[in-house]
Amino acid sequence: MMIHRTGPLFTDLYELTMAAGYFRHRITGRATFSLFIRDYHRQRSFYLMAGLGEVLRELADFRFNPGELDYLRQTGLFATDFIAYLSDMRFSGDVYALPEGTVFFANEPIMEIDAPIDQAQLLETYLLNTIGFQTLIATKAARCVHAAGGRPVIDFSLRRTQGHDAGLKVARSSYLAGFEATSNVLAGKLYGIPVSGTMAHSFVTAFEREIDAFRAYADAFPEKCVLLIDTYDTLEGARNAVRVARYLRDRGASLVGVRLDSGDMVSLSVAVRRILDDAGFPGVKIFASSGLDEFSIARLRGEGACIDAFGVGTRMGVSADAPYLDIVYKMVRFNGRNVRKLSPGKATLAGAKQVFRRYDEQGKCREDIIGLRDEKVSGADPLMVPVMRAGKPLGPEMPLVDIRRQATENMQQLDSRYKRPEADSSYPVTISPGLLEIQK
Amino acid sequence: MMIHRTGPLFTDLYELTMAAGYFRHRITGRATFSLFIRDYHRQRSFYLMAGLGEVLRELADFRFNPGELDYLRQTGLFATDFIAYLSDMRFSGDVYALPEGTVFFANEPIMEIDAPIDQAQLLETYLLNTIGFQTLIATKAARCVHAAGGRPVIDFSLRRTQGHDAGLKVARSSYLAGFEATSNVLAGKLYGIPVSGTMAHSFVTAFEREIDAFRAYADAFPEKCVLLIDTYDTLEGARNAVRVARYLRDRGASLVGVRLDSGDMVSLSVAVRRILDDAGFPGVKIFASSGLDEFSIARLRGEGACIDAFGVGTRMGVSADAPYLDIVYKMVRFNGRNVRKLSPGKATLAGAKQVFRRYDEQGKCREDIIGLRDEKVSGADPLMVPVMRAGKPLGPEMPLVDIRRQATENMQQLDSRYKRPEADSSYPVTISPGLLEIQK
Repeated sequence: MMIHRTGPLFTDLYELTMAAGYFRHRITGRATFSLFIRDYHRQRSFYLMAGLGEVLRELADFRFNPGELDYLRQTGLFATDFIAYLSDMRFSGDVYALPEGTVFFANEPIMEIDAPIDQAQLLETYLLNTIGFQTLIATKAARCVHAAGGRPVIDFSLRRTQGHDAGLKVARSSYLAGFEATSNVLAGKLYGIPVSGTMAHSFVTAFEREIDAFRAYADAFPEKCVLLIDTYDTLEGARNAVRVARYLRDRGASLVGVRLDSGDMVSLSVAVRRILDDAGFPGVKIFASSGLDEFSIARLRGEGACIDAFGVGTRMGVSADAPYLDIVYKMVRFNGRNVRKLSPGKATLAGAKQVFRRYDEQGKCREDIIGLRDEKVSGADPLMVPVMRAGKPLGPEMPLVDIRRQATENMQQLDSRYKRPEADSSYPVTISPGLLEIQK
Repeated sequence: MMIHRTGPLFTDLYELTMAAGYFRHRITGRATFSLFIRDYHRQRSFYLMAGLGEVLRELADFRFNPGELDYLRQTGLFATDFIAYLSDMRFSGDVYALPEGTVFFANEPIMEIDAPIDQAQLLETYLLNTIGFQTLIATKAARCVHAAGGRPVIDFSLRRTQGHDAGLKVARSSYLAGFEATSNVLAGKLYGIPVSGTMAHSFVTAFEREIDAFRAYADAFPEKCVLLIDTYDTLEGARNAVRVARYLRDRGASLVGVRLDSGDMVSLSVAVRRILDDAGFPGVKIFASSGLDEFSIARLRGEGACIDAFGVGTRMGVSADAPYLDIVYKMVRFNGRNVRKLSPGKATLAGAKQVFRRYDEQGKCREDIIGLRDEKVSGADPLMVPVMRAGKPLGPEMPLVDIRRQATENMQQLDSRYKRPEADSSYPVTISPGLLEIQK
């Protein structure tokens, strides 16, 4: 299972060899590392922060256990005194971060760690992985929610996420971003997310006739019955669904919906809607699934498909058009000195930072300013907040429903031109004079 | 952490509602489900099987624990007698599968489950996720290994894999496919994979001068020193590396290598090679990283880059050009009756199957035949083997090194036209007369 402690060996070896190098040379100064996304990857013009809660739990519990230390000893790479030093290591740093559910933009710091350099360095791989992936999916999911224009969107991705932990994180991140429910039962249990599901084609083929399968399912779930109607012939399936709708009505229940999973969804949904309406069942909803994402949802809506809810799977669950973020974690300050690297195409801004946001009169985001952490930017709100001091969390973990509300509000504050599937506008982000000054 | 039991709630809700439907209607017949990949996703013309060991451990331990049953009860979806039935459920089926490390092709069954229909159905989501992702990565990694033409390839992907479980599975799947090592320390501990790593830019910027950082690292790791030389200026970095090479030589050690992580790798690697050679260090290796995959490795080699080893990260770790497989799990036989679905573009072949392979005189794969499980195909070897009978594994788990050897042999048997980055040839796979006959 994937909900236990991840532990400090979830790291690249070089984080440990560097720490050993610092230890040997008694380099113990305090460093500031900044986590940010370098560039938009295709059609993205915003990001939605996710993954912080898990990170703070892990940092509060940071320690090498005996088995982990044994393994490091066995590699033959590390001196005995360094292993002893690791065995006493706890995370003692300060952490600043955007709250989960905050909309942000490329190059903005989203988390900063102030800590002894070895501790801060050891976290790199874990932070990039944990915040990066959840932010990737929350962003993709928020785009799907926007494309659906208020119609419910449900996470169906579990079968093709990249591993088990990803399956859980996709359910959480997509719910955070405004999804209505997930098919992922374990995520339902762990996070309290509503669970949802219908039937597979195999259920239909397990019976001699489609109508027998539909009746059997309706008998088992009279109040929650959604029928998959495309196993043999979608229109015939819709007519069988009408029979079941009558069957349920005779028993005091009502058919919730039908699901389309193949074929031309525009023409099929219109035809199925007509069959249902003509039979006197305008309340039976049409669910669609199969290869959906923000692009196809927008297209289906644009072409007049009669779809009431979208089941979104693989393409959201792996962020298929952009399956990773160019997220990096860079040292920007060390021993009271601002630092940066100059590698071509990978230059970074020195200094401990803050992100400031200005809003217009309607409360919409107008512009962001990346400034120094201790700077004041007039008429703008700082977005990063202190979340950990000397290794201790500054307050309880934010409940998922509150994060979800915050995400919804943040998305409402963002002009729709940045939320379209084909993002063609770039939100204004500038550098403050103070931050610019220290780059010289 | 992600190495414990995953458990039966790692599933889509509909697997459970369908099982409840079968239970209510006393549908208990034996079904055969077949796992296969429907279509090649861009530039792929083979796949490499991975993930079976984990699946067999999970199936042998399949059971709902009290907390899981409690959660199902709380959803209000399931009757008490069904929950009681689940509490006694163990996996009692037979499993046939391709061994890990087997090369295979689209539409070939790679695993078949014969079990009571509800048990077989409940496994769908878990099997698709677990086999699908590891096969995706093993395939991508095998392509990278082929592109590198015998030069070592190392997994650097952990920071941007899709979650924690993915990070571990990528390390295992890429090692299985022929990678030399991983940067992932936890994977080193869990799977016994060699670990490898150098330093980050932050290590260099933590010192006043680059040469100080290099010397400090060389002092700490005199036998395993690889220097990252592009933090400020790559050629100057190479000259500093020469100083360290001399420093180590004076102390009876030798510099292992330098690493390039940005800029034009072709011209830089040639220039760095010359600096190292001119200074009398032809044995110091040049490692390259940053955005590598099979496409860029092939290009770098084609353009004459002087690179001795490749660090491959994100693009392999998320299979960036094809981040999911069109893998499906379909019921093909139920209660002694062959079944299939007819949905447009998603039709399946009925019947329990086997994959047969013919080889030419040189031992290269010549063609595959998908046939019936109990068919004999002359001059061809069956590839799927029984791995579980009545819920019990038929033998111990294959050690990872043996799987890796098997993968290497399988890749050698595959003609190189199928292994090129831009796969433009389609390996011949035909359907046996026996299998064709039962589709009527």
